[in-house]
Amino acid sequence: MFFEEGEHASITRRVTVADVEAFARVSGDHNPVHLDEAFAAASRFKRRIAHGLLSVSYISAVLGSRLPGPGTIYLSQSITFRAPVFLDDLITASVTVVGYRPDKEILTLRTECINQRGQTVVEGQAVCLVSDVDRVQNAQIEAVG
Amino acid sequence: MFFEEGEHASITRRVTVADVEAFARVSGDHNPVHLDEAFAAASRFKRRIAHGLLSVSYISAVLGSRLPGPGTIYLSQSITFRAPVFLDDLITASVTVVGYRPDKEILTLRTECINQRGQTVVEGQAVCLVSDVDRVQNAQIEAVG
Repeated sequence: MFFEEGEHASITRRVTVADVEAFARVSGDHNPVHLDEAFAAASRFKRRIAHGLLSVSYISAVLGSRLPGPGTIYLSQSITFRAPVFLDDLITASVTVVGYRPDKEILTLRTECINQRGQTVVEGQAVCLVSDVDRVQNAQIEAVG
Repeated sequence: MFFEEGEHASITRRVTVADVEAFARVSGDHNPVHLDEAFAAASRFKRRIAHGLLSVSYISAVLGSRLPGPGTIYLSQSITFRAPVFLDDLITASVTVVGYRPDKEILTLRTECINQRGQTVVEGQAVCLVSDVDRVQNAQIEAVG
């Protein structure tokens, strides 16, 4: 297995009202700033914002599906929430390899979410164990799929 | 506003199949280790596991609803994934105040998820801006609700 510094992958997703409501249900986080237009209008954000971890979940999707890909084991994640994510925002979650320890098969990646205005909304770092990742097989699956 | 070191709050949630499938849809993370019984059986975990961030979302629910409560602004979160979470696990997410800076109204909390066997599955630290949190009003809402 081989990972190169600077290697990167991303996905882009629209933050829909339905997704924010589903995230509230699965998390149990019914904070009205996410769900209640009137409450949100009186908040510092003036309108409903998405749960911060919804954007982080897009990072997990990149890690689990693209880089390092299926088989990856998530060891840790640090997150700084830089700016709010609003409903209907278009978020690009990207991960970039910053280090790889072949002896431990541990990969460190810079992780970032950017909105449609180019503003960084989430940034941080992920560490993954990649010993169960089969890059050759994953590439074949992607080529077939 | 006043927060005491050691003050804590928690919620307990069952990780249902429906929640894991909903989390896959909202995040776009369709890693088969979460969704495909046959794939998961061949993995090191032997059965389907929940998305790591699903448990972290329970921490966000405690922060947003209990401590510090509605109005809280999530600044950062560090997470270490210590052990897998399986479908039907009962996860208790808890947060404990470890520091408060009254001048900045910034609260630091230890965050942890424990499964029904008492095993820590997720741990880390959250930092929240609490200047928009109204503890008196939140207590009244909770008393009425």
